[in-house]
Amino acid sequence: MDELEILKTLLPSLQCGPEVLVPPGDDCAAIRPSPGKVLLAAVDQLSEGVHYVDASASARAAGEKLLKRNLSDIAAMGGVPRWCMVALAAEKSRSNAWICEFLLGVAEAAKRYGVALVGGDLCAIRPGGAGVTASLSILGECEEERVCRRDRLRPGDGIYVTGRFGNSLRSGHHLNFEPRLKEGRFLSGRYTRCMMDVSDGLALDLRRMLLSSHAGAAVEEEAVPLRAGADVRAAWGDGEDYELLFGVPPDLEGELCAVWPEEFAELHRIGRATAENEGRICDLSGKEIPLEHYGYEHK
Amino acid sequence: MDELEILKTLLPSLQCGPEVLVPPGDDCAAIRPSPGKVLLAAVDQLSEGVHYVDASASARAAGEKLLKRNLSDIAAMGGVPRWCMVALAAEKSRSNAWICEFLLGVAEAAKRYGVALVGGDLCAIRPGGAGVTASLSILGECEEERVCRRDRLRPGDGIYVTGRFGNSLRSGHHLNFEPRLKEGRFLSGRYTRCMMDVSDGLALDLRRMLLSSHAGAAVEEEAVPLRAGADVRAAWGDGEDYELLFGVPPDLEGELCAVWPEEFAELHRIGRATAENEGRICDLSGKEIPLEHYGYEHK
Repeated sequence: MDELEILKTLLPSLQCGPEVLVPPGDDCAAIRPSPGKVLLAAVDQLSEGVHYVDASASARAAGEKLLKRNLSDIAAMGGVPRWCMVALAAEKSRSNAWICEFLLGVAEAAKRYGVALVGGDLCAIRPGGAGVTASLSILGECEEERVCRRDRLRPGDGIYVTGRFGNSLRSGHHLNFEPRLKEGRFLSGRYTRCMMDVSDGLALDLRRMLLSSHAGAAVEEEAVPLRAGADVRAAWGDGEDYELLFGVPPDLEGELCAVWPEEFAELHRIGRATAENEGRICDLSGKEIPLEHYGYEHK
Repeated sequence: MDELEILKTLLPSLQCGPEVLVPPGDDCAAIRPSPGKVLLAAVDQLSEGVHYVDASASARAAGEKLLKRNLSDIAAMGGVPRWCMVALAAEKSRSNAWICEFLLGVAEAAKRYGVALVGGDLCAIRPGGAGVTASLSILGECEEERVCRRDRLRPGDGIYVTGRFGNSLRSGHHLNFEPRLKEGRFLSGRYTRCMMDVSDGLALDLRRMLLSSHAGAAVEEEAVPLRAGADVRAAWGDGEDYELLFGVPPDLEGELCAVWPEEFAELHRIGRATAENEGRICDLSGKEIPLEHYGYEHK
């Protein structure tokens, strides 16, 4: 690991807009935020052997995944991603080539999504340590009235998802996924105030939404859209879907389904929010769906 | 590592101001930035066995150090720290108690400095991996006209530092240091537009300032203030000082020295910027000081 060499390779891929007053290279980046917007901020990590499979995923795909995981969080708030910072820790023997590929994966994906990489840090882990851990902080912007939260589901809201679920790892979706930025932005303009990103499994994440919102769910299991190779159990529990889960007030459901753009990810209604059964996922008859063992956790 | 248990312990230490519209727990935090201010952003890491000594430093002191390293970056820009996010990766067997202590170190120091912890991520590293790596992203604010950069040193500027240098590790300074926030803020109000944080050694960091500013330095080695137990070689090369290095236009030097508040860190003038000898640290006669081997790098 040679920090200077790595920076030299990376620099041509860094592009900052005119709002970046002090670009990377100083103690901090300095940014002029858009007047009147709310700032969105999140951090996420990727650890080798946990979040990507060493043999099958290239360093570049892993870097790209790290960025896209964070973009998915911005999408879920209904916002627009703007800036990011990346920190990477690796054993001292890790090659410059590997680290450059990883960081180029972050930087080129960032450019593609209109995000400026404004800061970073590289460090070596202790002698004898092995593996790479990287963290990425994402900053986005959103109009205050469009910010979507996970605790705003109201009884009667239709519960919707984008895309399909399950079998993300074997199918390669966990690397190839497209963060649902345009869908999230479209939804936050009018159709939802309650949205979240599904990354830890539909069962676990829907339950989180229900618990925060003090609501229950009546779900039609057959309506949960399956990714190729997935059964309903995988759809509930696998995780790594990076799809949006959101509630739509009943008076907007018809309109939403009518105007949903064809080029967007598929839109599916999987059920509705209920006042009863707080925190529970039930079928249409009100019987709890036994999902206890479906919650995905990174080992 | 049990994420839920850890969050439960941590939550009482998290305090967000009214500008935090969506607190930690959602996909992103949402923040209303101060109108008209510039946003400062930086990320820094701490890796066990590299940035703190396992045996002598408690988990709490390590967490506090991670925050303070980042505060030092905000101080060097002349700004005010506001929000932060922390990401921690550890082997699965690391105790909840250790992780909680580390994160409480971050959270309680954050509270003390008026910084809200608005986001975080915990993950396990691969089986067989050992050691903790943590990254912290800091966000601060500054009036645009007060932002200090490292590339603004002008020939004739006095070169100043806060505090003393060298012997940071053995003296415990690398854990106990006070980020120079009030000094940085005072300086950015009137006395400097060129400032940086000295953390990798005075020789290396001064050279970085000279290279960015296309200037040279005429330094009086005897004027470099030494920490107890340090000689001038240690002062140039040890690193981990977390002091401020800055240039002061000649017409403001007298005033600065006259009004420097007594309760602040010591103020020392170590030399002046020159048009010649670009990127070089020289003595008052213009002869280069042989500092090649003094640059500190984390192993």
